[in-house]
Amino acid sequence: MRTVYHEQLSELDREMGDMCALAGSAMKIATQALLDADVSLTDQVLGAHDQLIAKRARAEQDAFALLALQQPVAGELREIVTSMQIMADAERMGALAVHVAKIVRVRHPQHAVPEDVRECFTEMGTVAVTMCDNARQALAADDPREAARLRVEDDAMDNLHRQLFTVLLDRAWTHGVPAAVDVALLGRFYERFADHAVEVGRRLAFKLTGTLPPEEEVSTY
Amino acid sequence: MRTVYHEQLSELDREMGDMCALAGSAMKIATQALLDADVSLTDQVLGAHDQLIAKRARAEQDAFALLALQQPVAGELREIVTSMQIMADAERMGALAVHVAKIVRVRHPQHAVPEDVRECFTEMGTVAVTMCDNARQALAADDPREAARLRVEDDAMDNLHRQLFTVLLDRAWTHGVPAAVDVALLGRFYERFADHAVEVGRRLAFKLTGTLPPEEEVSTY
Repeated sequence: MRTVYHEQLSELDREMGDMCALAGSAMKIATQALLDADVSLTDQVLGAHDQLIAKRARAEQDAFALLALQQPVAGELREIVTSMQIMADAERMGALAVHVAKIVRVRHPQHAVPEDVRECFTEMGTVAVTMCDNARQALAADDPREAARLRVEDDAMDNLHRQLFTVLLDRAWTHGVPAAVDVALLGRFYERFADHAVEVGRRLAFKLTGTLPPEEEVSTY
Repeated sequence: MRTVYHEQLSELDREMGDMCALAGSAMKIATQALLDADVSLTDQVLGAHDQLIAKRARAEQDAFALLALQQPVAGELREIVTSMQIMADAERMGALAVHVAKIVRVRHPQHAVPEDVRECFTEMGTVAVTMCDNARQALAADDPREAARLRVEDDAMDNLHRQLFTVLLDRAWTHGVPAAVDVALLGRFYERFADHAVEVGRRLAFKLTGTLPPEEEVSTY
């Protein structure tokens, strides 16, 4: 028989999945705003982050209530604590999408991204959104293999990030210092977004197995 | 009578304070390495981060064991969950010190920081280390006023960060694109470090009062 408690646990899982979906959608819109220099889209990104903050605050209260009232052990304890950690990652992913949106606003009506790195940002956006989708699916299916695959996608992001820095630090860069600063920071926002998706996968693996996979090494940039 | 349980809780608090101290010390050494282009110091920064990772993993296990075996409620439940969140912040602060150290390594034997922003980084380092000290003291004393003061110190960091970007984006910047990229990223690492110290204060306030103070707005850079 499904108890109210188990329904509350499922609700927490659903909220966590919704937050990952919302973070992915925020980054998708932020990337569109960036590529089109379309400042009208940035409000949606800020709105999504506000929603993420509110959702996390509510879900964290629910998680505390479950811990206090149900006193779970083993797998269910891991499930609740993990959900709090994953929601922190999802909120941070939303904040990174806001950082992208804010650079679009500062540079408007100019494009923050010069033509020769446009393709790179298009791909970084695609990888970021895909990772969010896959993290959400891994959570929904409690699938550790899907979670582990996030690292492979993160490698793709790291490669794009390196590629970006190769263009940026080349003597042939003609777009000046302000554009270089924007591009360096934007690159970092996408790369950190992917790191948080990997972290969601690590935490899911811990929830499922009780063992936390090792962290990745800190990259140079 | 003090029980084993209460000793374990105190031990968790101590570990959390130690981790904040270790993160502060890592950033202090990373700043010294940066200002002196002294690559020999960077190993210590990487070592501190390894220690932080190991400490967090161990303390997180201890926290799980306390939750499972003692089934705490109210203040003690908040204390344990909060300690897990604060240790995540401290570990991340250590990773940010590693990012600073890695830029020192990449640029060596050259200085990553041109003379005209050297003073700014000196001050950012001082503020970062002070914030860590104050976060640790706030934790040790369970002092919500000290925790709230971290926001004032974070404002000082934000001002330094803005000042840095004023120099960086000025037409008078003569150090070229690679130095500008380093400086922009370094500035961000210090600014994020301070954000995590503020987050430690917010979480401490929650532990003490049961109410989480509001988040700060996402800055433009």
